[in-house]
Amino acid sequence: MPSSLTEPEVIPQYSFMDDYSEGAHPQLLEALLHTNGTQQISYGNDEYCNEARQFILSKLSATNDDVSIHFVPSGTSANLICIASCLRPYEAVLTVDSGHIVSKEAGAIEATGHKTILVPGVRGKMVPENLERVVRQNQFFPHSAKPRLVYISNATELGTIYTKHELVELSTTCRRLGLLLLMDGARIGVAMSAPGNDLTMRELVDLTDIFWIGGTKMGALLGEAIVVGKHLAEDFVFHLKQHGALLAKGRVIGVQFRELFRDNLFFDLARHANEMAQRISATFEKLGYQLAATTDTNQVFVMLPEALIQRLEERYRFYVWERLENGECIVRIVTSWATDALQVDKFNAVVEQWTIETTS
Amino acid sequence: MPSSLTEPEVIPQYSFMDDYSEGAHPQLLEALLHTNGTQQISYGNDEYCNEARQFILSKLSATNDDVSIHFVPSGTSANLICIASCLRPYEAVLTVDSGHIVSKEAGAIEATGHKTILVPGVRGKMVPENLERVVRQNQFFPHSAKPRLVYISNATELGTIYTKHELVELSTTCRRLGLLLLMDGARIGVAMSAPGNDLTMRELVDLTDIFWIGGTKMGALLGEAIVVGKHLAEDFVFHLKQHGALLAKGRVIGVQFRELFRDNLFFDLARHANEMAQRISATFEKLGYQLAATTDTNQVFVMLPEALIQRLEERYRFYVWERLENGECIVRIVTSWATDALQVDKFNAVVEQWTIETTS
Amino acid sequence: MPSSLTEPEVIPQYSFMDDYSEGAHPQLLEALLHTNGTQQISYGNDEYCNEARQFILSKLSATNDDVSIHFVPSGTSANLICIASCLRPYEAVLTVDSGHIVSKEAGAIEATGHKTILVPGVRGKMVPENLERVVRQNQFFPHSAKPRLVYISNATELGTIYTKHELVELSTTCRRLGLLLLMDGARIGVAMSAPGNDLTMRELVDLTDIFWIGGTKMGALLGEAIVVGKHLAEDFVFHLKQHGALLAKGRVIGVQFRELFRDNLFFDLARHANEMAQRISATFEKLGYQLAATTDTNQVFVMLPEALIQRLEERYRFYVWERLENGECIVRIVTSWATDALQVDKFNAVVEQWTIETTS
Amino acid sequence: MPSSLTEPEVIPQYSFMDDYSEGAHPQLLEALLHTNGTQQISYGNDEYCNEARQFILSKLSATNDDVSIHFVPSGTSANLICIASCLRPYEAVLTVDSGHIVSKEAGAIEATGHKTILVPGVRGKMVPENLERVVRQNQFFPHSAKPRLVYISNATELGTIYTKHELVELSTTCRRLGLLLLMDGARIGVAMSAPGNDLTMRELVDLTDIFWIGGTKMGALLGEAIVVGKHLAEDFVFHLKQHGALLAKGRVIGVQFRELFRDNLFFDLARHANEMAQRISATFEKLGYQLAATTDTNQVFVMLPEALIQRLEERYRFYVWERLENGECIVRIVTSWATDALQVDKFNAVVEQWTIETTS
Repeated sequence: MPSSLTEPEVIPQYSFMDDYSEGAHPQLLEALLHTNGTQQISYGNDEYCNEARQFILSKLSATNDDVSIHFVPSGTSANLICIASCLRPYEAVLTVDSGHIVSKEAGAIEATGHKTILVPGVRGKMVPENLERVVRQNQFFPHSAKPRLVYISNATELGTIYTKHELVELSTTCRRLGLLLLMDGARIGVAMSAPGNDLTMRELVDLTDIFWIGGTKMGALLGEAIVVGKHLAEDFVFHLKQHGALLAKGRVIGVQFRELFRDNLFFDLARHANEMAQRISATFEKLGYQLAATTDTNQVFVMLPEALIQRLEERYRFYVWERLENGECIVRIVTSWATDALQVDKFNAVVEQWTIETTS
Repeated sequence: MPSSLTEPEVIPQYSFMDDYSEGAHPQLLEALLHTNGTQQISYGNDEYCNEARQFILSKLSATNDDVSIHFVPSGTSANLICIASCLRPYEAVLTVDSGHIVSKEAGAIEATGHKTILVPGVRGKMVPENLERVVRQNQFFPHSAKPRLVYISNATELGTIYTKHELVELSTTCRRLGLLLLMDGARIGVAMSAPGNDLTMRELVDLTDIFWIGGTKMGALLGEAIVVGKHLAEDFVFHLKQHGALLAKGRVIGVQFRELFRDNLFFDLARHANEMAQRISATFEKLGYQLAATTDTNQVFVMLPEALIQRLEERYRFYVWERLENGECIVRIVTSWATDALQVDKFNAVVEQWTIETTS
Repeated sequence: MPSSLTEPEVIPQYSFMDDYSEGAHPQLLEALLHTNGTQQISYGNDEYCNEARQFILSKLSATNDDVSIHFVPSGTSANLICIASCLRPYEAVLTVDSGHIVSKEAGAIEATGHKTILVPGVRGKMVPENLERVVRQNQFFPHSAKPRLVYISNATELGTIYTKHELVELSTTCRRLGLLLLMDGARIGVAMSAPGNDLTMRELVDLTDIFWIGGTKMGALLGEAIVVGKHLAEDFVFHLKQHGALLAKGRVIGVQFRELFRDNLFFDLARHANEMAQRISATFEKLGYQLAATTDTNQVFVMLPEALIQRLEERYRFYVWERLENGECIVRIVTSWATDALQVDKFNAVVEQWTIETTS
Repeated sequence: MPSSLTEPEVIPQYSFMDDYSEGAHPQLLEALLHTNGTQQISYGNDEYCNEARQFILSKLSATNDDVSIHFVPSGTSANLICIASCLRPYEAVLTVDSGHIVSKEAGAIEATGHKTILVPGVRGKMVPENLERVVRQNQFFPHSAKPRLVYISNATELGTIYTKHELVELSTTCRRLGLLLLMDGARIGVAMSAPGNDLTMRELVDLTDIFWIGGTKMGALLGEAIVVGKHLAEDFVFHLKQHGALLAKGRVIGVQFRELFRDNLFFDLARHANEMAQRISATFEKLGYQLAATTDTNQVFVMLPEALIQRLEERYRFYVWERLENGECIVRIVTSWATDALQVDKFNAVVEQWTIETTS
């Protein structure tokens, strides 16, 4: 995690900072243009939101009897609303220590009144043994807040993904312990499109209680789709309204999700992002640099010497994630649905050239 | 206020339900298209947000030394963030009983921990005498929550506007009583463009402590611009993040506000909305129907007989606001920047024809 | 309601300010002494709390299958915990406009995140017609917070009480509308011991969902007993702990409630308080002063001329509740379980003497 | 930390479970009796609270110009009120991972909306290096909640104490980093009376911003005294009221603190508790058992074999704190102001006898 953010005044050249530096996929903008003139019912009841819901349901192999779908403008909205809707005031959410809600959302979860209990993560993932141990350590009732909800991300903050086996084990553990399971899907596109993925969208419905599908990081201008299990769905829309996440013109998100899920655009864009990251990751590995995490999806975490970082920073933007004691740094390179393959090749060439120059 | 909302399944013909049934003004969508490909810094620090800030400052005759400007996705976001940022936990916000935050935001203000104290309104407006009396009734400290912030809307929920004289009096009263003043500007466009308006944008800066400029109801797909007085501006962005209102692609709002405030589009669109309402209002008055409130801006509140309402509902959508004991109803007709003048003329014609038929 | 509280530096002579100016009934203090040396389990699981629960259950003609009983240190604790435990985040509590939670608890309810919706009261009481109308006005979902809980006090803030007929009607209305019913019993002792009362303690269990029995205002040093219907009782103790209301030495409340409910002490003390108020009230009426509310319990609200008030303030302390436009004031005289009958007689004599002097 | 609490049905013999199993020191009860009949101003403005404040100020070598003093009924109240009063909504409190607020208060801090950030502790204590590192890791603004307040306990949850050197270093670090410092003094009596203590009460005023003095664990039936630095004191009482911690009969706490601080009773009682713990600790050490923490105050943490624990449980109550992998357990023995020296000697004799029997 970057310890502080100092945004440069000028964008030097090409950014691998994150997967939300560009606007929307053109197809989405066109759809906004074509639908712009119609009058629509407000607050998420317009025809585009409804069509988007149908397309998403279809990808989930699910129906309105299984889940309800709601659209919100941001990932933090999605997380705080999902968590607040699942918990009674004295109940807590469990998350791995690297979880996005721990230190990237300005205390948004706690602002809804709920404690987050930290569980040691394994490569960014929640594992049953650690979860069960921490739950056991928090049974001193009523002095302990009551563990009730498990928060995970797929892909994780480290770009890793859950295998089917892992998610089944975790889901089973949760149900045995009386815990609900929430999946933060800010990067669910790249996760479900990753080479190593063996989960189906339907299995997300079956193995979690609630999850959300990130649009912001996968080609939309904004918007996330929350998929709420029917047992949690009653009155869900009140939470959206109360937290300012129920847009008057819900169509702005509905239209975009309609395009993303009408055919396979969402997953196609994700596959592109993953491929770009793989290409960068492979170059680093080939040249002998050590990855700090496996490149499962669109994020590359790699240990680089200071001099190479300086060379790269002349032309590229990315986060220096952590400074190590050996003088090297862990650097995070993020690709997106919009990443230009030419820029990736140039980036790889700079790395390769610098490496050859300095090692020869 | 409509006592319940039952959205019709099909849009019958033309909607005067609200001012957010259409998408965005085409110029805004075009700008989104033109700017789409560039890589931008995230979370509101992109060049479009910054340009929008400059254009808005220019309209305010203000500088960065006077105010800070932040963009949020919805009006409820704007209100809850403004209020939460101004108050200590035991402090309360005062609002007229018809205020939007009272019964239209699902308890969003209270969800941030703060009490709302009701003040009897006069035509939707806060008046100094009533404010001062209620403040006096809430001095039984520490048993009374401490009155600290006054919330007003311009235009109000009833479509009325504050005159310069009224706002100066109110602002003076607030300062004398040690109260901050917040203006909800969801419909600030129509207010500042109303025929009866004598306030300047600069005076909003001078007479309030914080206010916001509504984009959603004035030609944007989404977005409101919060104008925060410097004395309240420190750390303001944390509140946005904590409430899920800091969009990763802040550009989606920045681009739109840049277009709205680059020249006079924002005010031109507002003037159109007002003119359309005036045309409807004038017809009602000419035909002898009684207005429930003066038509200062883009909302017409008129008392109509049930039979006329039924006739109108064949071709138009609007809210039946209140059922009166005499069998008539107060109906709310809302026009927008996008309202079609031809539809207004047809609507007026239906009213006129029905009136002639039934009274002859 | 007093508009502001300026506590005098010195207690002039005898106080009729409130019913919590004295310590505890001596029998309670003796019980604290006798039980002091034993070691007890903490946090409300001691033998004295358990005995107190049994005695209270007996007075309620109820068992552990009907209700759970929890002790908290203050009335504000009781209210905020009861309300927070009943509501989901977007649900609201309805109260008469003179309700204690409206302006006497520093926004404690809102601090738990919940909206209070005001209903016009009738002599301090919630009546079904007004309740139903306000509920109907708050059905604009999801924009309205969802009405879910009705808060009443018995005795009310004006000292009035609910008859059986009134409470049955209200309870029936609540159940029909899907609303829970909470009774604030800060002064439930004087209510249930009032000459006009026709409710039994068992009927409180049957007609409400949750209520509390005030000890602070009826002979205890501190403490209120919350009686929670079984359908609301699960995990209730967590709310106590989370709000700092679960005392380590729960015995300090348990011992006192054990004494109050072992025999009839609680109701005997309440009857004394009522009798003292009746004596004062009768004198005022006999002398032609107008009561601002019927004296159902231990509070006398009476309209007095300024000169008489000044004479009384030489020897007595009481609240000037409201200054009227005719120059008179509404004064509140409160008696308690500890009120000295001699002081009451002297007070009456002063009133009588002044009245004779000035009218002759 | 005990992983779960299953209270035995019957108290077997003598309890070393905690320091709140007994009632109050007799002198405090007598004072409650003697003061019982007087009429007092309510809500903490009575003469006993005021006298208690004067006595406490005297022990602090401080005046009303330095600090304000408020009384609350419980330690959780004290913590949640202190923390809520110090922070803006987006600000966080830092605590060692073993801190009481982390897992012993049912999420009370988060229920006021604030994040707790964990810092690795050293023997229960906050050390500047770890604090500074964690603060540095939380500067990714506005995505990180803003570190603003440091929470420590003295004595700590492990019974250890801060030396003057340690507290000066920590305080200096806090001020340099712009952090406020709060000391939880639930066990401040035993800390300040410990053999190893070299801090004065005045230094607590100078080195912290706010701290509280625990009465519940030092001879009072209930009550803690919050000492608020003047820079934080404005409007503090509103927080008490809002959280249900402002008792109508504030005298019940005032009278007890008056007695505790009139002379040296508070510190004398603390010294007794410490001596009893030392006697137990010394026996364990003499017999070769390993302490899990140094016995600075009234808590003994010792590793014992299962068989000895079973023998002890025949006659004594105490917590099995943690089960170790080697089959032994860490046991917590707590003494109090009321601990009977004879019982301590008998306990030591049981330990000694069992040890001799099994090792010979």
